[in-house]
Amino acid sequence: MQPVTEHVDRLVCSACGATFAPEPLHTVCTHCGRPLLVSYRLEALCDRFRPEVLAGRVRSLWRYAEVLPVPFDAVRSLGEGWTPLLPQPRLGRQLGLPNLYVKDESLNPGGSFKARGLAMAVAAAALRGVRQVGLASAGNAAGALALYAARMGLSALVFMPEETPEPAVWECRLAGAQVYQVPGTIAEAGAAFEAYRREHPEVFSVATLREPYRVEGKKTMGYELFEQLGGRLPDVILYPTGGGTGLIGMWKAFDEMEALGWIGPERPRMVAVQAAGCAPIVRAFQEGHETAEFWENARTLAAGLRVPKALGDFLILRALRESNGTAVAVEDDEILEAMARWAQAEGMLAAPEGAATLAALLRLREAGWVQPEETVVLFNTASAHKYPAVVHRVLSRVEATEIR
Amino acid sequence: MQPVTEHVDRLVCSACGATFAPEPLHTVCTHCGRPLLVSYRLEALCDRFRPEVLAGRVRSLWRYAEVLPVPFDAVRSLGEGWTPLLPQPRLGRQLGLPNLYVKDESLNPGGSFKARGLAMAVAAAALRGVRQVGLASAGNAAGALALYAARMGLSALVFMPEETPEPAVWECRLAGAQVYQVPGTIAEAGAAFEAYRREHPEVFSVATLREPYRVEGKKTMGYELFEQLGGRLPDVILYPTGGGTGLIGMWKAFDEMEALGWIGPERPRMVAVQAAGCAPIVRAFQEGHETAEFWENARTLAAGLRVPKALGDFLILRALRESNGTAVAVEDDEILEAMARWAQAEGMLAAPEGAATLAALLRLREAGWVQPEETVVLFNTASAHKYPAVVHRVLSRVEATEIR
Ligand SMILES: Cc1ncc(COP(=O)(O)O)c(C=O)c1O
Ligand SMILES: Cc1ncc(COP(=O)(O)O)c(C=O)c1O
Repeated sequence: MQPVTEHVDRLVCSACGATFAPEPLHTVCTHCGRPLLVSYRLEALCDRFRPEVLAGRVRSLWRYAEVLPVPFDAVRSLGEGWTPLLPQPRLGRQLGLPNLYVKDESLNPGGSFKARGLAMAVAAAALRGVRQVGLASAGNAAGALALYAARMGLSALVFMPEETPEPAVWECRLAGAQVYQVPGTIAEAGAAFEAYRREHPEVFSVATLREPYRVEGKKTMGYELFEQLGGRLPDVILYPTGGGTGLIGMWKAFDEMEALGWIGPERPRMVAVQAAGCAPIVRAFQEGHETAEFWENARTLAAGLRVPKALGDFLILRALRESNGTAVAVEDDEILEAMARWAQAEGMLAAPEGAATLAALLRLREAGWVQPEETVVLFNTASAHKYPAVVHRVLSRVEATEIR
Repeated sequence: MQPVTEHVDRLVCSACGATFAPEPLHTVCTHCGRPLLVSYRLEALCDRFRPEVLAGRVRSLWRYAEVLPVPFDAVRSLGEGWTPLLPQPRLGRQLGLPNLYVKDESLNPGGSFKARGLAMAVAAAALRGVRQVGLASAGNAAGALALYAARMGLSALVFMPEETPEPAVWECRLAGAQVYQVPGTIAEAGAAFEAYRREHPEVFSVATLREPYRVEGKKTMGYELFEQLGGRLPDVILYPTGGGTGLIGMWKAFDEMEALGWIGPERPRMVAVQAAGCAPIVRAFQEGHETAEFWENARTLAAGLRVPKALGDFLILRALRESNGTAVAVEDDEILEAMARWAQAEGMLAAPEGAATLAALLRLREAGWVQPEETVVLFNTASAHKYPAVVHRVLSRVEATEIR
């Protein structure tokens, strides 16, 4: 596999359109403070980067070398990406959806899809001489950062809410990261991290959309869907949305795939799934706003969905509208119910965030928003093993209703 | 992919050599009570089952369709197998072993390598009309059984030691299995399961080596090593050995690969790694015995290694000797130390059983048993996330020696 940074054209501001040369290391747009996205020379790639060339390639997201900002040789992979897309025949029969799938992201290093973005961001930063990386996180991103920083020889610093599920905190500590736990949500953790960085500017932030490369890791989920469905995209994608990197990333991937000639202008309908106790994107979508307001008193057991304000809210909302998609909020009780149901029907150990997509699908199916013949993809973004306290709650519910 | 059961020739007893037609469902040899192994018509496959045909195939163990006993179409996969083989450059430098790798089996459904064997055994049983499956297990096999039984619509019944790490128990319950916890080790759990089966003969046992198909799932680790090393085998394999299915399976795979013309008569040196508190294979190896005696008062925090007696002991010992391999016992303290070191050096979240192979390698390297230029593969058989209590112990050690 050849080095690929040659295909990176420039960085483009997702809001004001300002452009930047890819070197040196960038954070957000210096004009308007919004996220930068990577732009590739796709026309030059059209002829040689075809789906057919992928067949024999590496079993990880690095198979999409030509549209990634970091050369594979420069990375110490942990095997991130190329997770299975699993048909859900039993659940599909129950819901009258014979073409139902789950993209099971729990089969990533550390047990969550955050591995994709952090593998990319840590490698990109390390290549440009960064020695210390940090972020504020609901948990899984912190864990992934700690693993990739250890793997690539950087030191890591993570700020998390006090209520973060313990396995995410443990993996950070095991991998030698410096861990700070802060009362409140990821918003307070983020403020604490920024305060820390004012004293320690040498710590590079790889927080969601604060640098351009995590999105590039996440977008590979979109390429994988295309390949795993045999060269087409699904009709509907349900994605558990906190900061929204994955949704923004897939949406970007689809535009790239169109420019490459892999697909036409058609797009899956994108559905942002949030928890009723923290649903800023759902509220903004329903009220027709272009950005989302801060959600006060955010509460949900789905830790990764407890994100009161997303820097990329306008990108998420735009993707939902352009795709004729929607936004759905589900109650914590529906999430617990969906976790039990999914494990029993299909052997799926879904994280609460992943189970939220199943709960949302039940609502959408009932409302007639999804048609029987449509191909629907749910995202399970992490393993249930990263949420012992939530699993406990599921089991006490299940066992309370059982006669043994 | 074509159906493949056509390539199964017969079942052969691993001890007395008696042969059986593959149908109907078999357990152990009806003559001598020892494990049956599947024999394929390999000569007929030589010409068309070549390593080159694998390039574009599915990202799971089902890529080896021709040498598997169950057709892929008949299986509801959860994405088992085809885990990454990861270079360990930092650890390799520290140990003077530039060609050091880990096969990271934590990236399997449910977070352990037990997925491979149980996917195969449950599918094989389901195809032959079985509706209820059960086993006794140290934990991970029970979890994997519960997931695949749920996925394929069978009911599952699992017997585990009381001390089993909680996540394994939870995944069984989540997936709707009937769970029994028994004082003692897997030996007592096994006795309780057999007592249960005398009352309920309709429950088919998929316990280690009590039926011929789990080994077939596990052997794919051997095929994957060959493919992932670019068409050769490593010089040394360190494998954490409880019941030994994986070691026996890989050893079988190497014989098949020789019959297929993929390799010659050379073999990796196989190393069985056990815990000092339960090391029946190590003792038998050192004393030159052909079988191992029951290990009294088995104690180790590596739950999967707390196996006082293995039905396949003679097969394990034979593979160690024929390969010029060895057997190593490590203390629990060395395991805890190795877990911390591995996470910090390479971002690897190893289970205690996996970390035991690193601890054993440190000993073997010191003793000069492994040479600098050799290619060495460690097996991390599960995720640290399945051992919260052990992770706790690692962290308290690490943090006791730190100044914050
Ligand atoms: C398991 C899980 N799912 C979903 C999310 C939300 O992801 P995103 O930030 O891409 O919207 C998170 C974020 O922490 C998460 O950990
Ligand atoms: C994580 C882990 N490693 C290793 C083993 C031992 O495996 P085997 O029975 O193949 O020797 C087990 C068995 O329970 C296990 O759970």
